[in-house]
Amino acid sequence: MPNAFQLDPRLEADSVPLAELPLSALRLMKDARYPWALLVPRQAGLTEIIDLDEGERAQLMREIADVSAALKAATGCDKLNVGALGNIVSQLHVHVVARFKTDAAWPGPVWGVGQAIPWDEGQRQTFAERLLAALGDRA
Amino acid sequence: MPNAFQLDPRLEADSVPLAELPLSALRLMKDARYPWALLVPRQAGLTEIIDLDEGERAQLMREIADVSAALKAATGCDKLNVGALGNIVSQLHVHVVARFKTDAAWPGPVWGVGQAIPWDEGQRQTFAERLLAALGDRA
Repeated sequence: MPNAFQLDPRLEADSVPLAELPLSALRLMKDARYPWALLVPRQAGLTEIIDLDEGERAQLMREIADVSAALKAATGCDKLNVGALGNIVSQLHVHVVARFKTDAAWPGPVWGVGQAIPWDEGQRQTFAERLLAALGDRA
Repeated sequence: MPNAFQLDPRLEADSVPLAELPLSALRLMKDARYPWALLVPRQAGLTEIIDLDEGERAQLMREIADVSAALKAATGCDKLNVGALGNIVSQLHVHVVARFKTDAAWPGPVWGVGQAIPWDEGQRQTFAERLLAALGDRA
């Protein structure tokens, strides 16, 4: 019997849930420096995108595109960064980050740079609502 | 009349051609520190993955998966890193990088870290042949 999916404790600690998409849990990173979403496919034992089968990979791409478009609509960002790294937390997860030319890490990547700044709770809630509304407009 | 696709001069300078896939030019970065491939969809004016239509995005995912599997087969890497950033070169390009726990940037990302080390020409050719053979096994 396969193990049930369980979110990696580090991903769980670093992010809050936003929505359940068909393949992935959509989460928001606890870092107010960047509008930063995570997609975590809900299957046990995944490390790489190629651990998904072809249909699941196509669904992951749809979810990446939907979240990308929603982030762009909700933020008016200068650039989107999409990445699946997993060098520290091996459980498959895809980052979708709204980048601004004025942000703390520009033009470098966001991973491993500086310390996360906690969201103001009200601002996070407002942002989450705006992002989910933009996502709903695409669904 | 739409502009014809032209590879960004910086991407051209930093990489060498490996193959033409249905959607993308496949290139190898001129950096012997990492087995590092680039996928550049051959369409003018692309910046984001969401600038592709849904069918093209699905094809991009197939090419990412094929190159990922080939890199893994050719290198026996510990982890694959897949990223579309474009903060410096805005022309849409996807990095697929074979990572080792012993490599120069582990466990951080490869982008913007240190200086590229040129490949030995013979080693580059041998590696390119091995990668293309692994890619051919999937096609």
